[in-house]
Amino acid sequence: MNKNLKVVVIGGGSSYTPELIEGFIKRYDELKITELHLVDIEEGKEKLDIIYNLSKRMIEKAKLPIKIFQTLDRKSAIKDADFIMTQIRVGGLDARVLDERIPLSHGIIGQETNGAGGMFKALRTIPVILDIVEDVKKYAKKDAWLINFTNPAGIVTEAIYRYTDFDRAVGLCNVPVNMKNQFAKIFDVDEKRVEMDIVGLNHHFFVTDIFVDGKSSIKELLDKYISGELQETPSMKNIESLQWSKSLIKSLKAIPNPYLNYYFMTKEQLQKQKEQFKENDVRAEAVKEIEKDLFREYSNPNLHEKPKRLEERGGAYYSDAACSLVNSIVNNKKDIQYVNVLNRGSIIDFPYDSVIEVASIITSDGPKPMNYGKIPYKLNGTLQTIKTFERMVCEAAVKGDKDLAVAALTLNPLVDSDSVANEVFEEMYKAHKKYLPQFK
Amino acid sequence: MNKNLKVVVIGGGSSYTPELIEGFIKRYDELKITELHLVDIEEGKEKLDIIYNLSKRMIEKAKLPIKIFQTLDRKSAIKDADFIMTQIRVGGLDARVLDERIPLSHGIIGQETNGAGGMFKALRTIPVILDIVEDVKKYAKKDAWLINFTNPAGIVTEAIYRYTDFDRAVGLCNVPVNMKNQFAKIFDVDEKRVEMDIVGLNHHFFVTDIFVDGKSSIKELLDKYISGELQETPSMKNIESLQWSKSLIKSLKAIPNPYLNYYFMTKEQLQKQKEQFKENDVRAEAVKEIEKDLFREYSNPNLHEKPKRLEERGGAYYSDAACSLVNSIVNNKKDIQYVNVLNRGSIIDFPYDSVIEVASIITSDGPKPMNYGKIPYKLNGTLQTIKTFERMVCEAAVKGDKDLAVAALTLNPLVDSDSVANEVFEEMYKAHKKYLPQFK
Amino acid sequence: MNKNLKVVVIGGGSSYTPELIEGFIKRYDELKITELHLVDIEEGKEKLDIIYNLSKRMIEKAKLPIKIFQTLDRKSAIKDADFIMTQIRVGGLDARVLDERIPLSHGIIGQETNGAGGMFKALRTIPVILDIVEDVKKYAKKDAWLINFTNPAGIVTEAIYRYTDFDRAVGLCNVPVNMKNQFAKIFDVDEKRVEMDIVGLNHHFFVTDIFVDGKSSIKELLDKYISGELQETPSMKNIESLQWSKSLIKSLKAIPNPYLNYYFMTKEQLQKQKEQFKENDVRAEAVKEIEKDLFREYSNPNLHEKPKRLEERGGAYYSDAACSLVNSIVNNKKDIQYVNVLNRGSIIDFPYDSVIEVASIITSDGPKPMNYGKIPYKLNGTLQTIKTFERMVCEAAVKGDKDLAVAALTLNPLVDSDSVANEVFEEMYKAHKKYLPQFK
Amino acid sequence: MNKNLKVVVIGGGSSYTPELIEGFIKRYDELKITELHLVDIEEGKEKLDIIYNLSKRMIEKAKLPIKIFQTLDRKSAIKDADFIMTQIRVGGLDARVLDERIPLSHGIIGQETNGAGGMFKALRTIPVILDIVEDVKKYAKKDAWLINFTNPAGIVTEAIYRYTDFDRAVGLCNVPVNMKNQFAKIFDVDEKRVEMDIVGLNHHFFVTDIFVDGKSSIKELLDKYISGELQETPSMKNIESLQWSKSLIKSLKAIPNPYLNYYFMTKEQLQKQKEQFKENDVRAEAVKEIEKDLFREYSNPNLHEKPKRLEERGGAYYSDAACSLVNSIVNNKKDIQYVNVLNRGSIIDFPYDSVIEVASIITSDGPKPMNYGKIPYKLNGTLQTIKTFERMVCEAAVKGDKDLAVAALTLNPLVDSDSVANEVFEEMYKAHKKYLPQFK
Repeated sequence: MNKNLKVVVIGGGSSYTPELIEGFIKRYDELKITELHLVDIEEGKEKLDIIYNLSKRMIEKAKLPIKIFQTLDRKSAIKDADFIMTQIRVGGLDARVLDERIPLSHGIIGQETNGAGGMFKALRTIPVILDIVEDVKKYAKKDAWLINFTNPAGIVTEAIYRYTDFDRAVGLCNVPVNMKNQFAKIFDVDEKRVEMDIVGLNHHFFVTDIFVDGKSSIKELLDKYISGELQETPSMKNIESLQWSKSLIKSLKAIPNPYLNYYFMTKEQLQKQKEQFKENDVRAEAVKEIEKDLFREYSNPNLHEKPKRLEERGGAYYSDAACSLVNSIVNNKKDIQYVNVLNRGSIIDFPYDSVIEVASIITSDGPKPMNYGKIPYKLNGTLQTIKTFERMVCEAAVKGDKDLAVAALTLNPLVDSDSVANEVFEEMYKAHKKYLPQFK
Repeated sequence: MNKNLKVVVIGGGSSYTPELIEGFIKRYDELKITELHLVDIEEGKEKLDIIYNLSKRMIEKAKLPIKIFQTLDRKSAIKDADFIMTQIRVGGLDARVLDERIPLSHGIIGQETNGAGGMFKALRTIPVILDIVEDVKKYAKKDAWLINFTNPAGIVTEAIYRYTDFDRAVGLCNVPVNMKNQFAKIFDVDEKRVEMDIVGLNHHFFVTDIFVDGKSSIKELLDKYISGELQETPSMKNIESLQWSKSLIKSLKAIPNPYLNYYFMTKEQLQKQKEQFKENDVRAEAVKEIEKDLFREYSNPNLHEKPKRLEERGGAYYSDAACSLVNSIVNNKKDIQYVNVLNRGSIIDFPYDSVIEVASIITSDGPKPMNYGKIPYKLNGTLQTIKTFERMVCEAAVKGDKDLAVAALTLNPLVDSDSVANEVFEEMYKAHKKYLPQFK
Repeated sequence: MNKNLKVVVIGGGSSYTPELIEGFIKRYDELKITELHLVDIEEGKEKLDIIYNLSKRMIEKAKLPIKIFQTLDRKSAIKDADFIMTQIRVGGLDARVLDERIPLSHGIIGQETNGAGGMFKALRTIPVILDIVEDVKKYAKKDAWLINFTNPAGIVTEAIYRYTDFDRAVGLCNVPVNMKNQFAKIFDVDEKRVEMDIVGLNHHFFVTDIFVDGKSSIKELLDKYISGELQETPSMKNIESLQWSKSLIKSLKAIPNPYLNYYFMTKEQLQKQKEQFKENDVRAEAVKEIEKDLFREYSNPNLHEKPKRLEERGGAYYSDAACSLVNSIVNNKKDIQYVNVLNRGSIIDFPYDSVIEVASIITSDGPKPMNYGKIPYKLNGTLQTIKTFERMVCEAAVKGDKDLAVAALTLNPLVDSDSVANEVFEEMYKAHKKYLPQFK
Repeated sequence: MNKNLKVVVIGGGSSYTPELIEGFIKRYDELKITELHLVDIEEGKEKLDIIYNLSKRMIEKAKLPIKIFQTLDRKSAIKDADFIMTQIRVGGLDARVLDERIPLSHGIIGQETNGAGGMFKALRTIPVILDIVEDVKKYAKKDAWLINFTNPAGIVTEAIYRYTDFDRAVGLCNVPVNMKNQFAKIFDVDEKRVEMDIVGLNHHFFVTDIFVDGKSSIKELLDKYISGELQETPSMKNIESLQWSKSLIKSLKAIPNPYLNYYFMTKEQLQKQKEQFKENDVRAEAVKEIEKDLFREYSNPNLHEKPKRLEERGGAYYSDAACSLVNSIVNNKKDIQYVNVLNRGSIIDFPYDSVIEVASIITSDGPKPMNYGKIPYKLNGTLQTIKTFERMVCEAAVKGDKDLAVAALTLNPLVDSDSVANEVFEEMYKAHKKYLPQFK
């Protein structure tokens, strides 16, 4: 695999791509990419062009022999590829605005990867990703890997493993690595000295232990929150992070993923979102503004590196995590990374054939999950609810089953009534119809 | 066991007792009870007296040689008993009014067996029931059975199995038998010709199959709802039953227990409850009025039978189900009843050592659960969430752990925020403090 | 189903058929069979004729309106049938002689349903049974049941569930009911008052509890063996039953199925078999003699009933158990019978999709296994070994995989070496080649 | 932990100790041991003296500041220790001679860690090890680790985890690392480039995958055996290794641990052992001779290093594996080693609370098992049989239950009859009585 390493980035015109390029440049000593193909669709041509040119300038500045290409022809780009990275956004940010605003107009949380918004993002994305998987199976090298960081990354990876026979896909998210880095700061040690035990799913896991130089330090960490020494649990750019109560932290003996804010602080999150809704400033709308600025900056022919500003975008470390994953697979590094892969009993209470987000040893044969065992009982209800929702959404997306999509919403904790589920589905379906060909 | 059958009813002063007496009278040919002891506490003395006298008149009218006693001395009543039936209400209906009104004053569902109200009922009840279990172990016959129909019956039975070594307890509820009877009406057949497959927990199960003369008829039943031929799913007196959407029924392929209305129709249920709140007519307040009338009626020395009116009370068939259970245990009837017992793998996805509500063969060695297998995946999230809540409540009740009780509320789907959980807990704890000695 | 009940017996020329006829006659009041078809193959024509005529005389004597037919045309017999009962012997008793003698000639146990002999019986039988299943799917009524009592009944039923999509098959054996009846005698009560908890597989289960009138009596029973009050554990006609040691019974807290004699007394069983081998009196050879006599007797036109002598044959109660099963399915009796059906979690340690022998409630929707839970750990090794063997044999039989058949033998506890496994397989394969078309 | 590292070797007078000393010397740069205590019992004083002096000479030659001590006072040696390594032999080699000869005299396999011999070694060893565990809990540092390489290492570790609350024990064996090294030779690569997937128990696992530079190479490896290119599967000094048949390897798709020779080649192994028995040359007798020579050599005051000859002894790499394990724990190396630890769901089909031999990431918090998932079904029977045996032996050893020990033997595949189990137990019990105080 080491010779002529060909990497394809689908959704190459994404604003995140410069971080990816930076990541590959940084690792070139170990990870000698020969060809890098940026692929996008007709609607994204203009952005792709900007990104391609910036990437080219970055590589030139680094004086590396990486050949870079841009194309709208996905199949030919995938031909003989070693790695296919997917970072697409079906319907673009305009669709995300709808994902956030329509639920809010019905009095429920509007969010990109959770609740009704998350479901519709999945319904639009899954058919496209399954098409890409077909291309990978047909055209890429036999031992090629698909690295998906398109959201909702967990649901998308579940769909690949449940509805195709392709078994070389890894879903990736930046939340675990961000949490780890924030914990490292708390303990004032280098990030490399920290590992975590996590249990759960993409955007829905709990940190149940933290190791500093291999020593379990969760009690020390929890005590900092319980005693009030630390005022804030780890958070993400795109989440209004509220503080969990001491009773919750003390009882769960775990740090929840920041996205669980939407579930355990629904009332307050909803109130904040309703204000943003009124001011036309929901997260998607804010991001549209940031993106506009970013692409203006990217277009500057004197820019030869990833601008600082990208970090505001919310996906910091996403692309870097992806480069790191590719590097460990290529070089059989056997380091620990947190990825979305098939459970296969790693967490005993989840279905054997479902996808989980789990600490894994990264080898040239792919990620090998470490064993976690049983879910601590207090965390089980929340996690099983999300997995049920994920599976229903996958099935609805693949079969084009509207009733099932409605039922998934009814059972989702962010939706407060079966009737609301029916209404929201109807309105969102109409709004996104163009991207939902699987539903008759 | 057949000779000198001694039955003890703890909470004998309950308004339900006449149905129990009627049930034993009806079955006397098979089930020859020698002694029947009605036990209550000082505060319930007056009601106990009324019930005792009515019961006596009923037995006399039936001309049966059942000796009936009333007492406040629980231990001596339990001495050498064969069956101990518990139907207590710690704090009485006044406590129930608080269980319903306080949560509502914080904008969340107030209900006797669910959410914050259900949790506080459990916190008050569990220590008392565990005390009774100790008495049963000490004083009753070695092979005595404890039949509990004190709510929340599932949580209480879980507490017995998880926190004592007593293994002859059965939790009982009238919902399954009520649903079965309503289905029998729909199919226009005698109730004896109908059996059900149920999966889940007390007040939180789904009917996944229905058999008429042993023939699976679930498709036919679901179609009646989906087609609109049937407008109403089975309901209970004490629940404002709203209609599930066709999408939900079609996708779940199961009939939800009416209590699931609070979870899948939270918005509408909350609205109705808020109206009742304003009019001082929450369910507990309505029930208080009904009880007042009932006891007036019971006091009539010319009354020699269970008055029709009792059926309005909401617990119809509860006591009859209890008599039926006792009868099948005594006579090794091997019929199918739906009871709360230890799972032991009957439903593979629930903890082996947790209590479930399950179709069981009733023998003289107690209920033997039939195998159910895996929970249909769509139902798993909801059911696991409730089981997690139940276990947290049990642990909090037994250990007197306030933080855990708060966390249980935070994770409960009827509570919309961690902050609300903290506030509601604090207020309810103060209100019920007298009955919560286990918390320091 | 009650009208025009059509029953088909495949292998109708079997010497056991008269018991079946007797069973149907005995139950006619409840179970009104309209048509009874005896099917056999060309080679069995003569025996079929004898059986048909005897059956006819039996029915006539009983003065019942059951129409009886004999035919070699399986497909047309199956047309619109309600029950298809399979009791075939591929290769006849001559093949069984080889199954017993060849292994013995290599120094290992030769037995009809165990070890090398059992495997070859399975390899010959499975393809024929799977053909019959195809006919049943095509020609029988949609809700028809296949009742298989062809040995090895557990392996054959496993093959049906694992390699076809037919889910209305039940495997039947007379060992559980024989053990139950022997226990009833020990307790001196009517058989109807006894039930058992069994755990395991066909010919390889343990009785872990016994209930007399619903009261657990296993301790009493075990004590009889341990104290020496009882000298003999239950046995079968066709097994040289030796006494388990007190240490074994005391430690297992269970009564082994008599077939486990071959596994726990291998040395002594082998010695006895070697003597029989020398005297040309292995069980199959003895049975051939019995059969010859039986058919002579059956041919007597003055015989109008099942002759006593049939009981010597070894399969006593087999056919009666089959009639009883049919009766309970037709009439939704909900009684407990011990049958081979899909596990579905009933015994948590066996594969969910494997077949087990288990106490089941017999309904018109088929047998519903009662929950057993975990296998007592001491019994787990033995039982898993047999299940592994069964599955390997099924796979080898269906795929025609010689290597796998050899490996199955190597892992079988009755085969003492990989080299012996290879030699025995080769010799037996040659001997039975005619009946093993699936192997190239 | 890095300062003042104190290591205690119980059974310090073992002939293996020089390899241990060599291992610590070799790793001193990373693993700075301050104090090394060799502990033995009165009967081993003479050997301890020889070993102590050789060790001292080795350390002096290496010019390292490791302080070395010898003592018979176990408790004071354990005081404040960081690592306690146990390599004891209760009853010495004389007991081993009996473990091998008595079973053989009854016609069954006599072997140190398997069958009757293995059981008696466990019965003698477990009580002593549990005593040591008590000392470790009382006197050692709170985060001390117990590294056990006393055989049968798997059973001993199971006993620790099942019958004490000590959770910092690791069982160690040299078989996995030996197999890995032999595979590395076959692929002609450095050992560090090879990893394996193993499934099973100490001395009873299968290699189901082998990775060269992270690439799955099991097919290539299996093909070498199936094609005959390789004539010999990996073997051990102390096992007469015979060739598995091609059918077996092809069907199992796995390489069995060499000890499985006793189970799959029982006949041939027994024949070889019977010859050794006649010539008074069973393995224990051969080893006694080797040991005599070794200690003569060790006594030579001019010897300053581990003599080559030790490799003949059979335990090569054992002590080196132990040093490597200590090193990775101390330095949080996160490398993969194959150790005996608590399962906790790593292999889903084994009890959650049993010990398995499994590929683990070695950290300062101890070994973290990688997830394996389900046991391939063909391997399940054999492995469960051994686990059942192990658990019965542990329970018998701890409770002093003779009946259970007999039953364990009856169920063991190397014992061909319940009667033989009873006889062998009786004779071995008498022979070893002195070391079996737990049996009354």
